[in-house]
Amino acid sequence: MRFKSRSPMSNPPVTLGAIQEARVRILNIAYRTPLYFSPRLSALTGAHVYLKLESYQPIHVFKIRGAANKILKLSTNDRSRGFVAASSGNHGIAVSYVAKRLGTTATVVVPTTAVEEKVKGMEEYGAKVERYGRFHDERLNRALEIQKTTGAVFIHPFEDPDIIAGQGTIGLEIIEDLPDVNTVIVPIGGGGLISGISTAIKSLKPAAKMIGVEPERASSMYQSIRNGQITRLTDTTSIADGLATREPGPLTFETAKRNVDSILLVSETQIERGVFTAIKECHTIVEPSAGAVFAALTDAYRPKAGEKIVLVVSGGNISLKILGAILSKYG
Amino acid sequence: MRFKSRSPMSNPPVTLGAIQEARVRILNIAYRTPLYFSPRLSALTGAHVYLKLESYQPIHVFKIRGAANKILKLSTNDRSRGFVAASSGNHGIAVSYVAKRLGTTATVVVPTTAVEEKVKGMEEYGAKVERYGRFHDERLNRALEIQKTTGAVFIHPFEDPDIIAGQGTIGLEIIEDLPDVNTVIVPIGGGGLISGISTAIKSLKPAAKMIGVEPERASSMYQSIRNGQITRLTDTTSIADGLATREPGPLTFETAKRNVDSILLVSETQIERGVFTAIKECHTIVEPSAGAVFAALTDAYRPKAGEKIVLVVSGGNISLKILGAILSKYG
Repeated sequence: MRFKSRSPMSNPPVTLGAIQEARVRILNIAYRTPLYFSPRLSALTGAHVYLKLESYQPIHVFKIRGAANKILKLSTNDRSRGFVAASSGNHGIAVSYVAKRLGTTATVVVPTTAVEEKVKGMEEYGAKVERYGRFHDERLNRALEIQKTTGAVFIHPFEDPDIIAGQGTIGLEIIEDLPDVNTVIVPIGGGGLISGISTAIKSLKPAAKMIGVEPERASSMYQSIRNGQITRLTDTTSIADGLATREPGPLTFETAKRNVDSILLVSETQIERGVFTAIKECHTIVEPSAGAVFAALTDAYRPKAGEKIVLVVSGGNISLKILGAILSKYG
Repeated sequence: MRFKSRSPMSNPPVTLGAIQEARVRILNIAYRTPLYFSPRLSALTGAHVYLKLESYQPIHVFKIRGAANKILKLSTNDRSRGFVAASSGNHGIAVSYVAKRLGTTATVVVPTTAVEEKVKGMEEYGAKVERYGRFHDERLNRALEIQKTTGAVFIHPFEDPDIIAGQGTIGLEIIEDLPDVNTVIVPIGGGGLISGISTAIKSLKPAAKMIGVEPERASSMYQSIRNGQITRLTDTTSIADGLATREPGPLTFETAKRNVDSILLVSETQIERGVFTAIKECHTIVEPSAGAVFAALTDAYRPKAGEKIVLVVSGGNISLKILGAILSKYG
C-alpha cells in the first residue's frame, strides 16, 4: 500500500533534537552498530543493499536504545524504584539489561507463549519474569497493576517519546554512514522503531523513502493508516513475535501516518524464507521480525537499479529450534 | 604450549609503518569491522570477551584485507595482466572480489575437496576456477605453472609482506577500539593473519598476549615453533579447511616465532562445538576456522577475571549443510 499526501503534524511528539540528545545519552550502553554492504543481496536485486545490524547490539536487538534513553532520563530517585515492563521478549531483555547496568532490577510481564531463550535472557540480567496472557494489551494492564502496587517505574515498549527518540538514533547513524540513502525498510510492531527512524530520516533527508513491513497476520499499523484511525485487530499470531501487536498507540500512529511512504505485508512463509535469505546470502542470524524485511526486499518491494536501500535488521534473538527448522526446510 | 623467550628479529619483514600504509590503501575495498562486546561469553568466562567480526567483511572473511593491499600496490600495468592464486576458498574469493572491483579477473586453483559455496563465490566475482590436488602446496605449484604460461601476477595466500601487512590492519583497529586489550586469540592456517595482527599489537602494546589456535590435526605452526624450524606435516585434514596448511612459510614462521606467546590446539569436536557456541551465545555464523577460536576460549584457554580478550572471528563462510548438521547435533 502506498499512502497519499499527508498533512504535517503541528506538534511532532519527537523532534530531531530529542534524538540527537538521546544519541549522546545512550553512548555508554547501546552500540553504534555497523552498516554492512551486502554484495550478494545487491547482485540479487540490482540495488545497493545495506544492512543496519541491530542484531549486534549487546543484547542482539535495537530495543536497548529506547530503554537506555528512557531510563537514563529518569532521576536517580526514580531509577532506584526499579522498573516494570510488558514485553513479548526483546523490550523486556532491554529493560532488564539497562537496569542491571545501572545497579537496579526490573519486573517483566511476558506472554505465556514467550520464546524460552528470551525469558532466560531477562533472568540472566536479574529480572523477575511473570507470564501472563497472550496479547500485548493484556500484559500491559498487568504491568500497570504491578506499577501501582510496587511503585516501580513503568517502561512502555513503544508509546513514549523517550523510547521513540532512543530508537531514532538508528536513523542518525544511517544518514552518517550513507548520506545518499534512497530507501529505508523497517519492521513495524507497535511502531516505535519506525517512528524514531523516520523522524530522523525525514528531518535530515526528506526525499528518502520510509517503507514499513508488517506480517499479513499482524497488520495493525497498515489497517490503522488505511482506516485513518487506530484500528484494533482481534488476533495477531505470527512467527514474528516482536511484530504481533494488536494496535499502535496515538504517538506511533500519528508519526507513522505522517512519515511512512508505504507499508508492505509479508506472509508467514515469506518471513521464514526471509530468515533463510539472511543466513544464506549474508551469513547473518536474524529473528523472524527482521526476516520480514529480507522478505519485503525480495518478495514485495521493487528496487530500482542502483537504489541505495537500507534494511533495518532489528534483532537476532531467534530460538535455536526455529532456526534449525528453517535451515532444514529451505537449506 | 607456551613458548620461551625469543630473540628479536633484526629485520622484521613487515613493519608497523607498512601496516599503517595498508590501512589507508585498502579503505575503499575492505571494511573497518566492528568489535562486538559479548555479554554472554563474558558471563560464561568471567573475562571481558570481544569479537572482532571479520565475518562482516563484504566477502565475509578477513582475506580481503591482504588481497586488497597486495593488488593495490601493483602498477596499473601489472594489474592488467590479471591474477592467479591457490586457495582452499577464502583467499580465492578475496582475490576474485578485489580483481572484479578493479575491472580485471583472476584464476584460482582450489582443492578437489573445496566447499561448493566458496567456489560459487569466486565464480560470481568473475574468476576462472580450476580444481587441483588436495594440499595447499600442490595447488600452489599448479598456480605457479599458470603464472608462467599466462603472465598473470601470482598472489600468495600468506607468504608475502604485502598480504601480511593487509591482515595486520585488524591489529590497528583492535588497539583503537580497545586500547587496554590484554589478549588476542587468532586462528593459524599459513600464519599470515597472526603475523600481521601480532606485528601491529606487539608494536603498539607489547604487554598484550598473542595466542594462536590450530586444529590438533593441522598443527604445523605449533610443530614448527616447537622444533625451532619449519616442519612439514604429512597430512592435515580438518573441518577447519582454512587452517589445514601443511607448513608455514619462512616469513610467517619467523614472525610468529617472535610474536606469538602460545599456541592452543583444539580437536575436531571442539571446533564443531565452537561453531555452535558462536551461534548460541553470540547469534553469529562462523566458519569452522573461526569456530576454533571460540573452542580455544571455552575449552583450552584459562581466562583471568576481568581479562580483556579479543577473539578474531576470521570468517563466516560455512557450508549450509555443515551449519545445519552442527545445529541438529548440538542444538
